[in-house]
Amino acid sequence: MSGEFALLATSGAARRGALTTAHGEVATPCFMPVGTLGDVKLLEPRDLHEIGTTIVLANTYHLWLRPGGDTLAAAGGLHRFMAWDGPVLTDSGGYQVFSLESRRTIDADGVTFRSHLDGSEHRFTPENVVAFQEALGVDIAMALDQCIKLPAERGEVEAAVARTSAWAERCRAARRHPDRTLLFGIVQGGLDEALRARSAAELVALDLPGYAIGGLSVGETREEMDRIAQFTTVLLPANKPRYLMGVGTVRDLLAGIDRGIDMFDCVYPTRSGRHGRVLTRRGREYNVRNAAYARDFGPVDEDCDCRVCATYTRAYLSHLFRSGETLGQRLLSYHNVAALTDLMCGARAAIEQDRWAAFRDAFVKAPATDSEKGEV
Amino acid sequence: MSGEFALLATSGAARRGALTTAHGEVATPCFMPVGTLGDVKLLEPRDLHEIGTTIVLANTYHLWLRPGGDTLAAAGGLHRFMAWDGPVLTDSGGYQVFSLESRRTIDADGVTFRSHLDGSEHRFTPENVVAFQEALGVDIAMALDQCIKLPAERGEVEAAVARTSAWAERCRAARRHPDRTLLFGIVQGGLDEALRARSAAELVALDLPGYAIGGLSVGETREEMDRIAQFTTVLLPANKPRYLMGVGTVRDLLAGIDRGIDMFDCVYPTRSGRHGRVLTRRGREYNVRNAAYARDFGPVDEDCDCRVCATYTRAYLSHLFRSGETLGQRLLSYHNVAALTDLMCGARAAIEQDRWAAFRDAFVKAPATDSEKGEV
Repeated sequence: MSGEFALLATSGAARRGALTTAHGEVATPCFMPVGTLGDVKLLEPRDLHEIGTTIVLANTYHLWLRPGGDTLAAAGGLHRFMAWDGPVLTDSGGYQVFSLESRRTIDADGVTFRSHLDGSEHRFTPENVVAFQEALGVDIAMALDQCIKLPAERGEVEAAVARTSAWAERCRAARRHPDRTLLFGIVQGGLDEALRARSAAELVALDLPGYAIGGLSVGETREEMDRIAQFTTVLLPANKPRYLMGVGTVRDLLAGIDRGIDMFDCVYPTRSGRHGRVLTRRGREYNVRNAAYARDFGPVDEDCDCRVCATYTRAYLSHLFRSGETLGQRLLSYHNVAALTDLMCGARAAIEQDRWAAFRDAFVKAPATDSEKGEV
Repeated sequence: MSGEFALLATSGAARRGALTTAHGEVATPCFMPVGTLGDVKLLEPRDLHEIGTTIVLANTYHLWLRPGGDTLAAAGGLHRFMAWDGPVLTDSGGYQVFSLESRRTIDADGVTFRSHLDGSEHRFTPENVVAFQEALGVDIAMALDQCIKLPAERGEVEAAVARTSAWAERCRAARRHPDRTLLFGIVQGGLDEALRARSAAELVALDLPGYAIGGLSVGETREEMDRIAQFTTVLLPANKPRYLMGVGTVRDLLAGIDRGIDMFDCVYPTRSGRHGRVLTRRGREYNVRNAAYARDFGPVDEDCDCRVCATYTRAYLSHLFRSGETLGQRLLSYHNVAALTDLMCGARAAIEQDRWAAFRDAFVKAPATDSEKGEV
């Protein structure tokens, strides 16, 4: 049944699970590529299926503005619009709206904001954000939260936690299709453990189908992120999926899985790919534009068996990037998403076989400079 | 055997042929997508195979500068570099070098020019251009020609014809792998019929495996192009492939086939696709960004069964273009190349069945405004 989360195996704190959604099962831990506007930049659904992507992320704020709910409803929902038949998660847009700063005013009922595109005025409430996501037919909807900029005064963080809890409760009450569209809550609380604990407790009391850790990966140090992610993860129910938002480097994915996170999303693999940056299966990163690769006829990642690595060479990718040929951006976006997806696949197998620690440590121990030639 | 051109059927002046190359047979009439730098912009070889493309075009001038002959040789040739196992034709670079104008000096032996990228000095001779193309392992190499800007003085056109003939003879003599890399001559002569006749006669006397009509589609009127293309085509040997360079609208392809042209190339389908312009199977064109398509959930071309038309809607493509998402450029490049490739497939079948005139006239008679909604 949609919303069911089966915990199939554990290895240390790492978890191997399966989340049932209206558009299929999501094996966890999983990485969700970001398709903000209804497309994962430069990749087609066929590419994502090939790569082994099971679930993609889109964004309420951006889709609300363009193409808008009426067009998406007329299209028969977001899945049909973007020609993707697998699960979709939409972020609530809270993060985007609050980052508009001078362009938005918040009140107890909701938030009024001006579009970054044309200055037109719009309003989000917990209720209309849930209704929008349900109308899109997405599999997982995020509750409208208040994400604040760090560092912040304790009082400001506390108010954001209170508002996020109140809005999550209203989101919960506003649902019309709770089985088709699973509502996830987002824990806030900045870098303050007491407030993180309060936020988690208030949201857990709502018995939602899943929980996310929000407000991280927004400029704090890596140590702060690790500390708060660790502190918060264990406050979340073991029988529900746990989602760490905005995280997508090999190092951070491994650290997240290690503490019991099930889901991740990040623009990093696609954005870095568009800039020539290669993420490798073993965690090394390099820029393929580097002169050292101009006559390197090996694959971009020796440890990867994705279609791009099986077909093209570093020299060809290097040429495409140096020549400004956009095909290079497509090919590296493909490889980078494949590398993280494959990492997740390996992690799931390792957890099933209770050899997670060895799997994790193989990455930590792999020399970062393995086969490097002049990093960027 | 490579270079063999079998004339399988005719219907009026239209010809159905088959050119054997070292990388396979090319059924003609054919349209060659342009992959100047070793990639057809935003499309992969797999896409081209799906579309039914049999031969792609690349460019000597651009590949000479980037990535350069040494890298291409180290890669094992252009086919391996770009991961395309079908036939490749390279233009000689004459057109590009002569369009550099102030950056080149021509003498009887060759042409010295400065790179448009970094100002570095290079030199093309008939001999080194043939050697370069042979080293790349391309299936068809174009002879180094002198393409002049129109309008031009008769004396200038005459000199360019004489130089093109002398250089073609030197290209012919410079060949080391005439069976693996077929050398085609390029007829010049501007808009002057007597000079076109002279150019054709001098090149035909060299008994090359194929002939192109160059120096058209460079700014002259459509009537002038039609007149010279018609005049020149009949001067070319019937038992050799005839290639009309730089032509790629539905109207011009039909006109070319109608007078006995076998091969075409043009950036038009990919370039127009990157700007949101849809070429349809029946000849109609429109811009998918147009507001009328924002909620049109039909395929971009009702008469097309390519993968893009089978998968995505006008509304989705319109959204991608309005949102600046590069995936839209990829999808329309795919469709536009597919539309012209499919047109060629239909033309070949019509010629085989001796119903070319009816096939051609169905396009001419199709209302240009069929299902139009606000053209751009």
